Amino acid sequence: MSSAWLLPEHIADVLPSQARRIEELRRELLDMARGYGCELVIPPLLEHLDSLLSGTGNGSEIKLFKLVDQLSGRSLGLRADTTPQVARIDAHLLNRRGVTRLCYCGPVAHTRPDGLNTSREPLQFGVEVYGHAGLEADLEVHELALDALQRAGLRHVMLDLGDARLLRGVLDGIELPSATLEALTAALASKDMGVLSELTRDMPASSREALLALPTLFGGREVLLLAAQRLPDHPLVRAALADLDWLARHLEATHPEVQLGFDLADLQGYAYYTGIRFAAYAAGCSDAVLRGGRYDEVGAAFGRRRPAVGFSLDLKTLVTLAPSSPLRAAVRAPWSDDAALRRAVRALREQGETVVCVLPGHEHEADEFDCDRELVREHTAWVVRTL
Amino acid sequence: MSSAWLLPEHIADVLPSQARRIEELRRELLDMARGYGCELVIPPLLEHLDSLLSGTGNGSEIKLFKLVDQLSGRSLGLRADTTPQVARIDAHLLNRRGVTRLCYCGPVAHTRPDGLNTSREPLQFGVEVYGHAGLEADLEVHELALDALQRAGLRHVMLDLGDARLLRGVLDGIELPSATLEALTAALASKDMGVLSELTRDMPASSREALLALPTLFGGREVLLLAAQRLPDHPLVRAALADLDWLARHLEATHPEVQLGFDLADLQGYAYYTGIRFAAYAAGCSDAVLRGGRYDEVGAAFGRRRPAVGFSLDLKTLVTLAPSSPLRAAVRAPWSDDAALRRAVRALREQGETVVCVLPGHEHEADEFDCDRELVREHTAWVVRTL
Repeated sequence: MSSAWLLPEHIADVLPSQARRIEELRRELLDMARGYGCELVIPPLLEHLDSLLSGTGNGSEIKLFKLVDQLSGRSLGLRADTTPQVARIDAHLLNRRGVTRLCYCGPVAHTRPDGLNTSREPLQFGVEVYGHAGLEADLEVHELALDALQRAGLRHVMLDLGDARLLRGVLDGIELPSATLEALTAALASKDMGVLSELTRDMPASSREALLALPTLFGGREVLLLAAQRLPDHPLVRAALADLDWLARHLEATHPEVQLGFDLADLQGYAYYTGIRFAAYAAGCSDAVLRGGRYDEVGAAFGRRRPAVGFSLDLKTLVTLAPSSPLRAAVRAPWSDDAALRRAVRALREQGETVVCVLPGHEHEADEFDCDRELVREHTAWVVRTL
Repeated sequence: MSSAWLLPEHIADVLPSQARRIEELRRELLDMARGYGCELVIPPLLEHLDSLLSGTGNGSEIKLFKLVDQLSGRSLGLRADTTPQVARIDAHLLNRRGVTRLCYCGPVAHTRPDGLNTSREPLQFGVEVYGHAGLEADLEVHELALDALQRAGLRHVMLDLGDARLLRGVLDGIELPSATLEALTAALASKDMGVLSELTRDMPASSREALLALPTLFGGREVLLLAAQRLPDHPLVRAALADLDWLARHLEATHPEVQLGFDLADLQGYAYYTGIRFAAYAAGCSDAVLRGGRYDEVGAAFGRRRPAVGFSLDLKTLVTLAPSSPLRAAVRAPWSDDAALRRAVRALREQGETVVCVLPGHEHEADEFDCDRELVREHTAWVVRTL
């Protein structure tokens, strides 16, 4: 009884001041996405486990809460990511031939937190553009992502670019057991040169050199030139470097305030992405606030292999980095069944005002709202007076 | 593979046209609640099972999806109702002495659907007012509820009133095993006179007559007079009838368009409510679209017995009953990296317009948005032209 108010670790209530900012930001981002022609979808929290795991790589199964469907006896999962669901909607339900832009905003749940101070219940907002394989779709998604961070009021945004094709090009023709591939991507991501040297010992020299070079390829635009020299001359590598260059040039023109960087060894979500991937960082948060990229295979499990590029972010994290917005002032009103008072209250509310009626006996309590005006009777009329 | 797109029974995606209306209505209702001084809270999807079951009566356990917390090994529940969570927030986290008005909007999940065409994942919107035991709080919550239905554009709303104290008064002094009490409330709710007659056979005559009378006590205001004659003269019964009369008189004044009815045997949520309860019905839906009432005991499990009155509704259901809103028209734009075009697109979006950029090669695809204008180049400038 006494501990019924205790919540599980890494799970928390969002209290009024934070909830208000989340709601404001939520609207801002959904309206922004709508401005780009994104249609909102609301996939369910629960799905058959195999659908949720479709095409997302192995890493995600451990994050999924599993439960049993009493109606069918089948295993269900509580979504840990909305992207596979939106791919299912594009592939199966909408089934359009042309470009489809979708957005979503809702909670997801993780069995384990991503970090020490991370919630196991992020509020995921995201955008997906299907049906266009060209870089114009990548650019649109990058612009959407940067606009989202701008709307949130984030300062000193850094956009980090990479491409999943680089590693694929480097490893082309080399058969690796999946455990070795996993160890390799982990070593690349953590730039662990010792492990990397060990893992690549028996590889052809050109691949080995390229893999050992990857962790050094981070920084500004010069990284692309260095990569062209140090990575093998493979079609996937050439395409990736050319695309990164094209995208960077365009983003520099449209978002000069954003600091662009490259980290060609960052392979977070490698099993997932098929082209350019990106992560955005902001002052005040060591982890990425937003991640996205191209994952053209994501719809394959649902019978439709469509080009796809998108991003997602956690609104609960984003709001902690955004500047706070002022609480709108409210009007205090006494309680009475006087019809004229009720009409005055109703009229103010219809104008968008918050009117807090002081219930009888609660006249001396503190207002939770910042009441800067009150409704008072003057002769026969109710008027708003500044407090 | 081929069936990865199949969803569990009674679980569905919400597609763009419906999702847009849900989002519009969601904002409308949250703004309306804010106008009354309600603060938004966002409780988590997952909690310890015992917290979710606190003070909600036994009926709710069967509705809860259960899962295991890998971090603690404890049982978690996926919330089936937000009310106990909001009571926990009021009791423990906010811990204020005065009147607290809270609102929420988020998904809940049920192991079994409530009806044949009912979703197992309602999108629950609700309001709770804590800290005032007087009828003024009931009235405010009723007005909020009716305003919500009005904002949704519902026609022919019927509000059905009852009071949990009536049965408590009638049964005062009679010890009933909980199974009998359950059978009794079920028989009253379904107006099953045969079962009722059976169950009440050994009761004192006055209680028996009252229980057999309850199912006949439904209709207009005259029901209150009849009830005063046919139910025992018990303080709880007198208080309930007087309160119902007071509330009905006030609602008739403020919401003359709403048809008021009484159903004194409707005991849905009997274990939960402690005073007046209500249900709203609308044309097009046989089940209630909204339910609420007073449940002063709801915070007791969290160490704080505060007066509480509130209501909740399912936005997914509500939106099917609401008239549809027109899709806002959009502007079509060609794709080009011309800086002047990008500026024109950005400016339109900042004005709140939807601008759909036609990606290269997709010029002949159908628009998903209703594009009634397009951006065209005239000499050196980009201008909006009606299509």
